[in-house]
Amino acid sequence: MASFKLLLLFGGLLSSLQAVLVSSEASVNPCCSFPCENGGVCVDDGDKYTCDCTRTGHYGVNCQKSSWSTWFKSLIAPSEQTKHFFLTHFNWFWWIVNNVAFIRNPLMRAVYFSRTDFIPVPHVYTSHHEYPTMEAHYNRSYFARTLPPVPKNCPTPFGVAGKKELPPAEEVANKFLKRGKFKTDHTNTSWLFMFFAQHFTHQFFKTIYHKPAFTWGNHGVDVSHIYGQDIERQNKLRSFKDGKLKSQMVNGEEWPPYLKDVDNVTMQYLPNTPEDQKFALGHPFYGMLPGLFMYAAIWLREHNRVCTILRKEHPHWEDERLYQAGKLIITGELIKIVIEDYVNHLANYNVKLKYNPELLFDSGFDYDNRIHVEFNHMYHWHPFSPDEFDVSGTTYTIDEFMYHPEIVVKHGMSSFVDSMSKGLCGKMSHHNHGKHTLDVGVEVIKHQRELRMQSFNNYRKHFGLKPYTSFEEMTDDPQMAAELQEIYGDVNAIDLYVGFFIEKGLTTSPFGITMIAFGAPFSLRGLLSNPVSSATYWKPSTFGGDVGFDIVKTATLEKLFCQNISGKCPLVTFTVPDSIARETRKVLAASAKDEL
Amino acid sequence: MASFKLLLLFGGLLSSLQAVLVSSEASVNPCCSFPCENGGVCVDDGDKYTCDCTRTGHYGVNCQKSSWSTWFKSLIAPSEQTKHFFLTHFNWFWWIVNNVAFIRNPLMRAVYFSRTDFIPVPHVYTSHHEYPTMEAHYNRSYFARTLPPVPKNCPTPFGVAGKKELPPAEEVANKFLKRGKFKTDHTNTSWLFMFFAQHFTHQFFKTIYHKPAFTWGNHGVDVSHIYGQDIERQNKLRSFKDGKLKSQMVNGEEWPPYLKDVDNVTMQYLPNTPEDQKFALGHPFYGMLPGLFMYAAIWLREHNRVCTILRKEHPHWEDERLYQAGKLIITGELIKIVIEDYVNHLANYNVKLKYNPELLFDSGFDYDNRIHVEFNHMYHWHPFSPDEFDVSGTTYTIDEFMYHPEIVVKHGMSSFVDSMSKGLCGKMSHHNHGKHTLDVGVEVIKHQRELRMQSFNNYRKHFGLKPYTSFEEMTDDPQMAAELQEIYGDVNAIDLYVGFFIEKGLTTSPFGITMIAFGAPFSLRGLLSNPVSSATYWKPSTFGGDVGFDIVKTATLEKLFCQNISGKCPLVTFTVPDSIARETRKVLAASAKDEL
Repeated sequence: MASFKLLLLFGGLLSSLQAVLVSSEASVNPCCSFPCENGGVCVDDGDKYTCDCTRTGHYGVNCQKSSWSTWFKSLIAPSEQTKHFFLTHFNWFWWIVNNVAFIRNPLMRAVYFSRTDFIPVPHVYTSHHEYPTMEAHYNRSYFARTLPPVPKNCPTPFGVAGKKELPPAEEVANKFLKRGKFKTDHTNTSWLFMFFAQHFTHQFFKTIYHKPAFTWGNHGVDVSHIYGQDIERQNKLRSFKDGKLKSQMVNGEEWPPYLKDVDNVTMQYLPNTPEDQKFALGHPFYGMLPGLFMYAAIWLREHNRVCTILRKEHPHWEDERLYQAGKLIITGELIKIVIEDYVNHLANYNVKLKYNPELLFDSGFDYDNRIHVEFNHMYHWHPFSPDEFDVSGTTYTIDEFMYHPEIVVKHGMSSFVDSMSKGLCGKMSHHNHGKHTLDVGVEVIKHQRELRMQSFNNYRKHFGLKPYTSFEEMTDDPQMAAELQEIYGDVNAIDLYVGFFIEKGLTTSPFGITMIAFGAPFSLRGLLSNPVSSATYWKPSTFGGDVGFDIVKTATLEKLFCQNISGKCPLVTFTVPDSIARETRKVLAASAKDEL
Repeated sequence: MASFKLLLLFGGLLSSLQAVLVSSEASVNPCCSFPCENGGVCVDDGDKYTCDCTRTGHYGVNCQKSSWSTWFKSLIAPSEQTKHFFLTHFNWFWWIVNNVAFIRNPLMRAVYFSRTDFIPVPHVYTSHHEYPTMEAHYNRSYFARTLPPVPKNCPTPFGVAGKKELPPAEEVANKFLKRGKFKTDHTNTSWLFMFFAQHFTHQFFKTIYHKPAFTWGNHGVDVSHIYGQDIERQNKLRSFKDGKLKSQMVNGEEWPPYLKDVDNVTMQYLPNTPEDQKFALGHPFYGMLPGLFMYAAIWLREHNRVCTILRKEHPHWEDERLYQAGKLIITGELIKIVIEDYVNHLANYNVKLKYNPELLFDSGFDYDNRIHVEFNHMYHWHPFSPDEFDVSGTTYTIDEFMYHPEIVVKHGMSSFVDSMSKGLCGKMSHHNHGKHTLDVGVEVIKHQRELRMQSFNNYRKHFGLKPYTSFEEMTDDPQMAAELQEIYGDVNAIDLYVGFFIEKGLTTSPFGITMIAFGAPFSLRGLLSNPVSSATYWKPSTFGGDVGFDIVKTATLEKLFCQNISGKCPLVTFTVPDSIARETRKVLAASAKDEL
């Protein structure tokens, strides 16, 4: 023990020495070593520091001592790992929970709070200040920041841990992220899910070009990807009749209008794209991939379908009122589908999450959501993407797929959706960023460094997980662990984004435990703090009466598609059926593109 | 009783007939008569309607029946009028309350909620939609709206009550608002208070020119009137040394810089104003009145004083950090002074309001404030303004005062503050808008009509007050009541803004009961939902440690001035001392400008 302390002292001396080497004039900021525990706030003061332990339930120089009540709570509260185990086992218990409302509701409420409490509001940090500012609250063009930036002028990029200089982002990406053989997701996630994720999140992940700390979005589920963000764009996409959006019929199906038929809507297409391959959509980037176009088109149909129903209910309502009520219903439907179809697939818990906003109405809740830059970075799920897409027997490379929304029109909605439901996503792991998206991964790593983001382990601590003590523990892969050790030098000094993918997987989810522990709080807070989830909005009159309210309360992914496709409904699922997935894996193995 | 019902029926027939006269084609929207009681939401459906009573605690066709628990609560809850009586009497009881923390704190918490509960969040209405929209939440350039607009195409401007055409705003203002003799405030409100109100509120009352439904502000106490709203303006006003703002010394005192000495800051001054009468301030309009300039200057001094203290505490902190911490401290000080000096003067209750944000931390609270257009209109307190200002023996007419900030510099801060503390405000009543501000009153009335604002009585209902049944009851002035009856025709059809001033006064406050019941909820919600009032900000480290936190927690109006004026401190008060007020009234009476 004594020798251990000596070692620590020696290590301390060494790092002081290092600090002196970094700058022979300024002393090292003591907050660089993140000495304050349990959420205490470090305030540097020359070479001294203080930890502000206010309301952390802890005290002591480093907020390391539990108050009596905190100690008692920690005795009875299970760890995040234990909770995860419990949530993914004991099927019989969860069957009861899922089916008995008076057990399910209080549990659901506890789940809501157990996640959203990880995101204390209002937000105090921006990417440009490692201390609270008024800017963080009032300057909404900033993405919010979960953990403050690493202080400036620390001995190493992650504070005091790791090497003085990080390996270049390109090198890290090539070594740990770049796809060799295409690996498929073991939970059979479908392309329909992947494109859902992309279409859903880009309504609020709207980074300002070359300014990664800033967003041009509305910080939440505002359905701007369907309708357009500002009033001007919305007006250009509206028909101003019966509340409906402009649309056109092609091959007997309803599609968004051609860009040429709409007045001056900015869209991103390649130069020289023929006019019948360019559509006008709510989001300027949604012509980029047929999967995004598919969702834009199906929501357009759903909006217009809902307006027809509302028009019948309220023959006297004017266009504006039908449009606004339609938009509220679509928002409610979207949230319902995200929680009950999407998040349930993603977490794959035995308890089925329910969208029941009323459970929060007695508690007081802050309905001002902010999008965190860390949430944005986490959501770069590019390993999901295969290298080519099969649509009803035609194979498209990514190059043939990109900027070709007309592929959906050509195959028809039904056939396209069917193919998306059968296509198998890539595994969310290391060595699985395809060649078309590897540069996106590199960019995220660069942005994280530019924004002085804290290390993977610091974020684990924030979300209630124990920091990993070694790369071996983190990866369960001795060879990769050795490489990581060589490149990064310290398990406390690894880029957050890289950490998500090198972390060992879970059998029950496409993601590792950190990505789940990290993503669920942001997701649930965003969804439950949406205005339609609030007591002032959540009532029949908001949605044009009981008919509209029922559409919201009974929405499912399957209905979204089936009610807007004439004829027989295609397969609509976020999970590729086992038999199809098996077949796909066989074919991939034969072509040596998957390791099986 | 039966004849009364017949009368009602007859009245109903009459108004139906009227409606038919208005438009022989469309039937009258039944929501025009505001049939839903107790906060129920009216949804029109041709000539039928439904009331959505969700979570109102009521049921029935018009939400007119109390649920059992609502009925029980109403039995034990005193009316707003009773509360007011209680709060302004029984001094001995309140002395105990004010001085015993364990009684005061739960009471203060109850007061906080009893007011802020009148402002349910998130907000559902804009001035352009009489029904909920996503716009109301996500389009922050809208002012929020407490009550929805009167439906379009109703028989009368206020729905069904009153005349088909309202008297012109100019006529109403001339008849009921225009000042004859200058009447002084019976509670001795000082000019220091009046300018405090103006300087404080214009940081968030920022109507977009000619678009009364919209604001260019940040919806709260963002101290933008001191520092500037966007980063660009802030940067132009910063010295970038020790966190301080640019300033200059004139006559041995610290003042804001001349406009010519600052790079391109937009300010509003008259053409041909000499350079030494134009200063660069946080808010473009604050050079308009010496009283606004006085507050801008004193806050500038306070910020720079605080930065000197912080610099001593944290010698290693860079300019940006000192600036941001200074700004947080100034925000905290401002809120403390507003609640404990300003609101206490305004309400004049026997219970002294305390700024104790911690009382809300266990309950959950929404920290996203919005400024309501009704709050903005209510705050047009122009009767406070006298026709001329006496500063240390020199009399300035309003024309001589306006756009002459250099008056403060000439007299010196101490002398100017002293005069502001001794100057007596006008009475907040009918017939007391001075000739320079009558047109502002006219404009507010016009805006209210343009925004289809509901009637005074409807707002009384919303804020828990009984609607007046006659103009006599409302005014306690038979002659004026008769005139109002002639002009408006119905006590349920009077402009909100006019109502505030013709309502009978209270002996204990400068305002009538409706203005108090109306203003307190908006004020308290705004102040308590400020980020610095939240659990994530309210801790020593946010304010640069205990020293800064103590500055916030012990701030007073008197200290704000006295710590920033060298030499003897002048009189600093929101209430003109009785002896001085008596003298002023005598002089006014002699010059026949006041009725005594």
